Amino acid sequence: MTANISSQPHEAFLADWAVHSRFGAVEGTGGVERQAASVADGEQRKWFAQLLEQHGFTVRHDAIGNQFGLLELVPGAPYVLTGSHMDSQPTAGRFDGAYGVMASAHACFRIAEELRADPSKARFNLAVVNWFNEEGSRFKPSMMGSSVFTGKLDLDTALATTDPRGITVRDALGAIDQLGDAADLAALAEMTVASYAEIHVQQGRSMEEDGVTIGLVNATWGARKFEFKITGEQAHSGSTIMADRRDALLGAARLIVAARELVDEFEPGILHTACGEINVYPNSPVVVASDVQLLFDLRSPDADVLNRAYARVMEKVEAVKAQDRVDIEIVAEHSWDQNPYPEDGLALAREVAEDLGLTHDRVMTVAGHDSTNMKDDVPTIMLFVPSVDGISHSLKEYTRDEDLVAGLDHLAGVIRRLAGGALVN
Amino acid sequence: MTANISSQPHEAFLADWAVHSRFGAVEGTGGVERQAASVADGEQRKWFAQLLEQHGFTVRHDAIGNQFGLLELVPGAPYVLTGSHMDSQPTAGRFDGAYGVMASAHACFRIAEELRADPSKARFNLAVVNWFNEEGSRFKPSMMGSSVFTGKLDLDTALATTDPRGITVRDALGAIDQLGDAADLAALAEMTVASYAEIHVQQGRSMEEDGVTIGLVNATWGARKFEFKITGEQAHSGSTIMADRRDALLGAARLIVAARELVDEFEPGILHTACGEINVYPNSPVVVASDVQLLFDLRSPDADVLNRAYARVMEKVEAVKAQDRVDIEIVAEHSWDQNPYPEDGLALAREVAEDLGLTHDRVMTVAGHDSTNMKDDVPTIMLFVPSVDGISHSLKEYTRDEDLVAGLDHLAGVIRRLAGGALVN
Repeated sequence: MTANISSQPHEAFLADWAVHSRFGAVEGTGGVERQAASVADGEQRKWFAQLLEQHGFTVRHDAIGNQFGLLELVPGAPYVLTGSHMDSQPTAGRFDGAYGVMASAHACFRIAEELRADPSKARFNLAVVNWFNEEGSRFKPSMMGSSVFTGKLDLDTALATTDPRGITVRDALGAIDQLGDAADLAALAEMTVASYAEIHVQQGRSMEEDGVTIGLVNATWGARKFEFKITGEQAHSGSTIMADRRDALLGAARLIVAARELVDEFEPGILHTACGEINVYPNSPVVVASDVQLLFDLRSPDADVLNRAYARVMEKVEAVKAQDRVDIEIVAEHSWDQNPYPEDGLALAREVAEDLGLTHDRVMTVAGHDSTNMKDDVPTIMLFVPSVDGISHSLKEYTRDEDLVAGLDHLAGVIRRLAGGALVN
Repeated sequence: MTANISSQPHEAFLADWAVHSRFGAVEGTGGVERQAASVADGEQRKWFAQLLEQHGFTVRHDAIGNQFGLLELVPGAPYVLTGSHMDSQPTAGRFDGAYGVMASAHACFRIAEELRADPSKARFNLAVVNWFNEEGSRFKPSMMGSSVFTGKLDLDTALATTDPRGITVRDALGAIDQLGDAADLAALAEMTVASYAEIHVQQGRSMEEDGVTIGLVNATWGARKFEFKITGEQAHSGSTIMADRRDALLGAARLIVAARELVDEFEPGILHTACGEINVYPNSPVVVASDVQLLFDLRSPDADVLNRAYARVMEKVEAVKAQDRVDIEIVAEHSWDQNPYPEDGLALAREVAEDLGLTHDRVMTVAGHDSTNMKDDVPTIMLFVPSVDGISHSLKEYTRDEDLVAGLDHLAGVIRRLAGGALVN
């Protein structure tokens, strides 16, 4: 059967979505610049709070700036939680994260209306969440809000984290008035989460190529991420004899090139590598660099590939140390295995897609999402809609309206079932 | 004959030198951090002004913050100018530039005393200079003060130049009160320079290896310097398929490695290459970089080597553009040919060394110096003293006291002759 959905909720969603995308908009592009706890992030959060309140939701913030909209339908019952994040990378797309929060809100608005009309169908309450700092561009690590919420990251550590200008998370959240007060914290302490659902644009192009509208995320790729510290010695970059140099930037450059070359040693598509951030000291035109910090990522769905790639990187590190007379150490490391989402959630999401007549397929996510944190604690469903050409973390990121509203309908179907008690014994 | 020099001027020099090295001192090292127009630079300039005034010199600043100490012995006559720069690279040595200014001051103090005692020997007046921003680490280009003084760089352009935080040269110099006032500018407009002398630590190790105390600088190496702009496209650095990426940081890394590999295609020691500065956007852990600025230098005493090296770099640029699907353009370029110092100045400096019984040899400079600007306008002598292990632009930079005072004696001998009219018809 195909659910009977009027176009009205679509129009309301698309209208709010258009307003939403104006916060931090980068003129002349479809994209946004809305890093965590920036002015634009703060303005958007205030607008979003109003939207939630207009639909009868109570807005609460926790101690790490996660923004919740709560609707109590069944006094004292646990909550179905759904959301994503509104912060962005620098000069990024307007869909990443933000689509998930807005789809969650509108899906909840729709289901709230249904449950108010027929309260017997509600077993759980509804909550929308806008997680703080999923991107990790301004404050590291990424997925900060959901990590603190799930107890994976210490609150005080997170609040004391600084951006490159030395501003703490605590001060940045205070400046945009997004830290929960005592009443907020007390209310949220009462909230029990029954289940979690999140929808996101794919950030890859397989669904678009395969003609799939709804991605049923069955696992995250495994990852090994390192922060390398490469140490050489300052010297005059003109007059110092080449053989006397210990050039930390040269050592880093060899690792960046090695990361790319490593990919070609494996089956196509099975290994992604990247170096996205480098910080160089003294970074002066006539000084050989003495200190470089380099972030280096390996990602694969195959644990054996990751292990072999890791071993090859360590071989290269030893070679560069010898060749360029630099020291290289790993000062931070963050790894996770290929990590499945629960099968009963996948089955539920597949049924909803079939009810709605939406094409669907199982897909893996390469990128991390807040649901990766949530799924370790509660029944969790992660959904994708297609992303044109797979472009993401770019002003050119784009998802078509028909996919946005199909995803909204699907998420609403998922939340309807979760609110009725699905996946929870 | 060996000149009879009492040890007293050496003690006075070394005592002032010890005070001088405290400005911007990096604790626990022998080095300094005293970038152009920093607080430490400003404090040191005020102290230096007092020192000059105590010895009867009048302190004047020009419109680009060059600091002059003038002593008029022959009313209306031109000046023998001598000096170097007190600004440093980040976490740098205490000798680079600063030794030259302090040796110039003390050499002038000594010669001023002689000429006051016997005015008949003075044909010219004496002036010490502390050139603004020789290093170019905070504000580009390097040798800014002497470039403006010699008309090679436009004053307004220089004053409007910003540091990485957006502070202009004008504001930075204003903040430390080092911009000349109307009286200063009027006085300096009257000053004609008869000749110029500069002494510096070698920043190479050939003199130390050859047992030479006084380097008679006969030429600068040629150089070709580029600022590359490498343009790719932002993308998610985890999920984007490798083949879809246009990674500007990868392109830059290939050029950094190529710079080093290029050296091995040439005779040992004939080519120096370097990439000391790189700026990456967005420089975020999970974003493929879209924009990289990379500084890239080639230096050689041989014009043919420079030309061949340049051609090889351009071949590599084309290869990287094709291989990594990035755009690479040269947005700034600065080149100079192998460039001789005048032979009559070298002959004068050799005679002074022989009079003093100091070992000496002709040496080339790889690094640029303010004298490179001055020598195009007036008779100019450039001198070196040895630098232990050739280390420079490093906290570990070191020159022994006996070499410092030998250089002081030698420079005083040069200034004595210049003040008497040598090299000027």
